[in-house]
Amino acid sequence: MDQRLSMITLGVADLGRARAFYEALGWKGQSPPGADIVFFQLIGAALALYPRHALAEDAQLPNETARFGGIALAFNTRDKAEVDRVLKDAVAAGGTLLKPAQEVFWGGYSGYFADPDGHPWEVAFNPHWPLSSDGSLRLPKS
Amino acid sequence: MDQRLSMITLGVADLGRARAFYEALGWKGQSPPGADIVFFQLIGAALALYPRHALAEDAQLPNETARFGGIALAFNTRDKAEVDRVLKDAVAAGGTLLKPAQEVFWGGYSGYFADPDGHPWEVAFNPHWPLSSDGSLRLPKS
Repeated sequence: MDQRLSMITLGVADLGRARAFYEALGWKGQSPPGADIVFFQLIGAALALYPRHALAEDAQLPNETARFGGIALAFNTRDKAEVDRVLKDAVAAGGTLLKPAQEVFWGGYSGYFADPDGHPWEVAFNPHWPLSSDGSLRLPKS
Repeated sequence: MDQRLSMITLGVADLGRARAFYEALGWKGQSPPGADIVFFQLIGAALALYPRHALAEDAQLPNETARFGGIALAFNTRDKAEVDRVLKDAVAAGGTLLKPAQEVFWGGYSGYFADPDGHPWEVAFNPHWPLSSDGSLRLPKS
């Protein structure tokens, strides 16, 4: 299995509401005609929104409702001000602030919001990991 | 908020077990000295493994145990044989087959495995979405 991840699919209760949230943040989704799915192009991968019951069925998993499924997504920023701005925009778009932006133990500055379906996003400035000009993340050489 | 995702963090019960699973699949992780986290470089982003209780605490969410948190990851392949191979390798590495590879309604061929912490991965060949030479995914123009 090569070292890549092609798509992250978020199960959502209401596709229109979920799409409107991400588009209010400035993202642009696309849907194949007549299909109950929305795709967002990321850098080298895609994020999809899909009805949660259909996603559970597709993966053949029980559709239990849980606040925290043990996965967090992260959006890294170029500076601290961008963290504050994104958290503010996420709340204005209908998200929930989980953790206000703060200095964190690993030397960065970060906070969390949840999207309307509760999926947690960390918004983080990491001074040790500058982003590339296209916004992509490259880990430091270890 | 620019249209990107920097990191996907999987909460895990046993960091060594989780790392061993992904490394048995051929991935190569890196850890800062003394830190309870493992990073894997993806294309333009990173996947992290982190103790689940610490991830819940970091996001200020209750650490409920759930089989399905409403998020699925996907690994897209270049052909059908690669789907079969990756699912077989995942099971050999200690994963669980959730759904055997099969022809699916959208015209592709896919199956699902769960990693040792239950995080679902779809392994999919999508003939409508050829991967770039570097393995990255680019959505068709809509």
